[in-house]
Amino acid sequence: MRGVRLLLIFFPISVLAEILHWGDLIIFITAALAIIPFAGLMGEATEALAEKTGPRVGGLLNASLGNLAELIITIVAISAGKIDLVKASIIGSVLGNLLFVLGLSLLVGGLKFGVQRFSRERVSMDATLVVLAAIAISVPSLFSEEIGPDFVRVESLALATAVVVLVLYVLFIIYSMRQPQVEGEHTPGAIEPSHTGPHWPVSRALIVMALAIIGLALMSEFLVGSLDVVTERFGLSEFFVGIILVPVIGNVAEHMVAVQVALKNQMDLSLSIALGSSLQIALFVAPILVFISLLIGHPMTLEFNHPELIAMVAASVIAALVAIDGRSNWLEGAMLIVVYLMLAIGFFFLPAAI
Amino acid sequence: MRGVRLLLIFFPISVLAEILHWGDLIIFITAALAIIPFAGLMGEATEALAEKTGPRVGGLLNASLGNLAELIITIVAISAGKIDLVKASIIGSVLGNLLFVLGLSLLVGGLKFGVQRFSRERVSMDATLVVLAAIAISVPSLFSEEIGPDFVRVESLALATAVVVLVLYVLFIIYSMRQPQVEGEHTPGAIEPSHTGPHWPVSRALIVMALAIIGLALMSEFLVGSLDVVTERFGLSEFFVGIILVPVIGNVAEHMVAVQVALKNQMDLSLSIALGSSLQIALFVAPILVFISLLIGHPMTLEFNHPELIAMVAASVIAALVAIDGRSNWLEGAMLIVVYLMLAIGFFFLPAAI
Amino acid sequence: MRGVRLLLIFFPISVLAEILHWGDLIIFITAALAIIPFAGLMGEATEALAEKTGPRVGGLLNASLGNLAELIITIVAISAGKIDLVKASIIGSVLGNLLFVLGLSLLVGGLKFGVQRFSRERVSMDATLVVLAAIAISVPSLFSEEIGPDFVRVESLALATAVVVLVLYVLFIIYSMRQPQVEGEHTPGAIEPSHTGPHWPVSRALIVMALAIIGLALMSEFLVGSLDVVTERFGLSEFFVGIILVPVIGNVAEHMVAVQVALKNQMDLSLSIALGSSLQIALFVAPILVFISLLIGHPMTLEFNHPELIAMVAASVIAALVAIDGRSNWLEGAMLIVVYLMLAIGFFFLPAAI
Repeated sequence: MRGVRLLLIFFPISVLAEILHWGDLIIFITAALAIIPFAGLMGEATEALAEKTGPRVGGLLNASLGNLAELIITIVAISAGKIDLVKASIIGSVLGNLLFVLGLSLLVGGLKFGVQRFSRERVSMDATLVVLAAIAISVPSLFSEEIGPDFVRVESLALATAVVVLVLYVLFIIYSMRQPQVEGEHTPGAIEPSHTGPHWPVSRALIVMALAIIGLALMSEFLVGSLDVVTERFGLSEFFVGIILVPVIGNVAEHMVAVQVALKNQMDLSLSIALGSSLQIALFVAPILVFISLLIGHPMTLEFNHPELIAMVAASVIAALVAIDGRSNWLEGAMLIVVYLMLAIGFFFLPAAI
Repeated sequence: MRGVRLLLIFFPISVLAEILHWGDLIIFITAALAIIPFAGLMGEATEALAEKTGPRVGGLLNASLGNLAELIITIVAISAGKIDLVKASIIGSVLGNLLFVLGLSLLVGGLKFGVQRFSRERVSMDATLVVLAAIAISVPSLFSEEIGPDFVRVESLALATAVVVLVLYVLFIIYSMRQPQVEGEHTPGAIEPSHTGPHWPVSRALIVMALAIIGLALMSEFLVGSLDVVTERFGLSEFFVGIILVPVIGNVAEHMVAVQVALKNQMDLSLSIALGSSLQIALFVAPILVFISLLIGHPMTLEFNHPELIAMVAASVIAALVAIDGRSNWLEGAMLIVVYLMLAIGFFFLPAAI
Repeated sequence: MRGVRLLLIFFPISVLAEILHWGDLIIFITAALAIIPFAGLMGEATEALAEKTGPRVGGLLNASLGNLAELIITIVAISAGKIDLVKASIIGSVLGNLLFVLGLSLLVGGLKFGVQRFSRERVSMDATLVVLAAIAISVPSLFSEEIGPDFVRVESLALATAVVVLVLYVLFIIYSMRQPQVEGEHTPGAIEPSHTGPHWPVSRALIVMALAIIGLALMSEFLVGSLDVVTERFGLSEFFVGIILVPVIGNVAEHMVAVQVALKNQMDLSLSIALGSSLQIALFVAPILVFISLLIGHPMTLEFNHPELIAMVAASVIAALVAIDGRSNWLEGAMLIVVYLMLAIGFFFLPAAI
């Protein structure tokens, strides 16, 4: 994980590129690379705080700040009015976790250890919640289509649904905290950037977090600001960038952890990170953004487009099926990655305007 | 359950309201309240008859008369030409059982007892049938859309499908009757209004049933007749009334039983009531209404609208997932209720004409 | 199985009918009947070769030639430009295996033996792959719709997806070959026309296969050539013929084997045949045809129509649910057959042009 910090070098380069007008492509690439260590530091700071505050508050911190990097990037994008980009990155983040990260973890773990086992009880709950997350994304979208162009109704539907989903997320956190903890494991809703978390004093953790937030927000501004030129030059749709590239950038650090613990045969923790992170995005970040976007003045509804919904349903069903039997092998990992590739191919060939 | 009978007082009030022209709103409310005890009495009479006739015939009685109240309300509505109301109430009844009743049972049972267990073998069958019920509702609907405006073809498709589904329901009843009975449990297709059923002589049971049918039919007439004014005044769509309110009115009595037995930790029975009732609606009441509606002269096809299908699929998948592992806890109950709320919110914001 | 060979008599009759112009109906029927023993012989020859070559190469032979009969029929149909017929027969073949053959096997096996058990581990993998197959069919179809009339993009999407799916199929075969073999069982991707395979010398097997291929190709020509007159005379859509009749003709031999072994209570083998055959069609035959059709000059994309996708999703979900618990009974078999009938009814009432 330490190696990732070297990428911080791209922060000053990116700032220079912006000031000296080196061109949008260089700004885009350097900002994207600089986001990776900031997201990692933010995760480490959350983890360090969680260690100091004890399991209860720590669990809450993890559950709410675990995807803070993602939240900041999306808020910056919403401010810039790029609502479609934000929606795509929400779905893409869930897909990345459920298919790519989980798939890679099961693949490398299975190749090393053969059949791997994990707690059926816990995973069965998470798998059901993953399917519920797909429902929470699909139902308001499909009902919004039937409502048609009446924006007030669509927005009201989004707000009311967001409240209900957030209530469920709170119940889920309460439930998780009352469960006996597995050795070296956090609440299922939690994402931990390193297995045992850094032992930082609170003051240091807070300062690191504040600096990481500032750095991340600035880099997100650069990223979003330089996006249009990049998509145009490479013939990529903004949609493809949102659903494949942005989630990779915001989640690389935690993705590496999930794979690393799979290689230590700690499958409960590996699944907890991958499934927990998708649940956090779908059941916490997405509904929270409905409210935040309203405050910012660029209201985001919960209307996702058909390819996004197809991807969400396919990913949640196949991930739930793979996880639910409490056993995994490399072929199951390969299956998830293949579904990810099929979806990525589909997104690539979609026209810019859907 | 006895307390419910006090609601019978609304029967004469409703009749008076109709005769003395007290207004449609009062008629609607009193008729709705009076339906609850009639449906309850009908269930008790069925139960009493089933006790006298022995397990075989009793199982058949329960399997065919278990949702008689619902059948009567829907037949009255079909006679009044309110086909869309009937379809909505079929879906709503399945949703109410799979999500609200099952959810509430698991929630209160789980809060009281922690993790509750039930027979995986039996529930696994019921869960598969619940998904099959969603297929039996969706396939003719979606194929009918492709057929287009050719009513004869759509009606033929509905009739042929209804025959096949009814054959499956008969096979399901035969299968259930041959299974060893769990203590205090009836056939999965059966709904029992009280755990041990009242010990009435056959004559009394028959009289109670006859009177309940008459009362229920009359109250249903009032309910359907006063519906238009009510929906208009409160800005509710007929669709919302059909999918949320009507099923609640027709099923309150049996819903209470499912929750009560969950509080006694009899989860096999509680699941049997909730799942069995939805199966009865989808695999028996719905196809039977295709034939009855044809005889009445207001033919009902099996064309459900998209929000209904979305709700049906979402409900059956999440209920099957929750049930299939043979264990439950309060969070799983909360999940089902949250899905119900999400759907209810969606239905509320739908425009009147879909 | 020997009885099936008597149907070879229809080969010369069909040829005579063609030469002497006895009419398209007679040609169609005799060609259809003659295909059955040729497909059977092809399966036996594959099996005999597999026995001689040892388990590794034999598994590969079974995995690639197991549905050779189907492949030849579809290639002949593609040459004749009947792309929609081919797509329908791909879906129909999966439906036939997942619903009709598996359903019949569980039904007759369950009636004879009561509850039957099979390996949860193996079936759980196959069930997940069956759902993945539905995703592999649905995702490119639904994304192609969004792409619209841009044929180059749709074709590129089909080619890229086909490559990814074929890679998965190869991984699946590698995985299957490394698994310890169950007594009397082949790789899951394999279809064996008789339990222990004929003991033919390699030369005889090769000659039989070559002759069967020639006979099958000729009969397929006759079948496809006489199709239009037949569909017209009986008022059947080409689509119905493709999705119901063609798969039956091409698979009768292997269907009989699956049912026969179910009657011997060898459920692992019976499920392996039914599930394995559908996987082979969806994950091997379908993507291979994308490439072959391009070479032939009648490019086939992976755009299936809505009824086909609905059927595919319904079949895979219900088959996965039935199989996944490792137990079966006659009602589960009846459920699968009922879903098959519902779909067949739906296809029957569809108009010719969808």
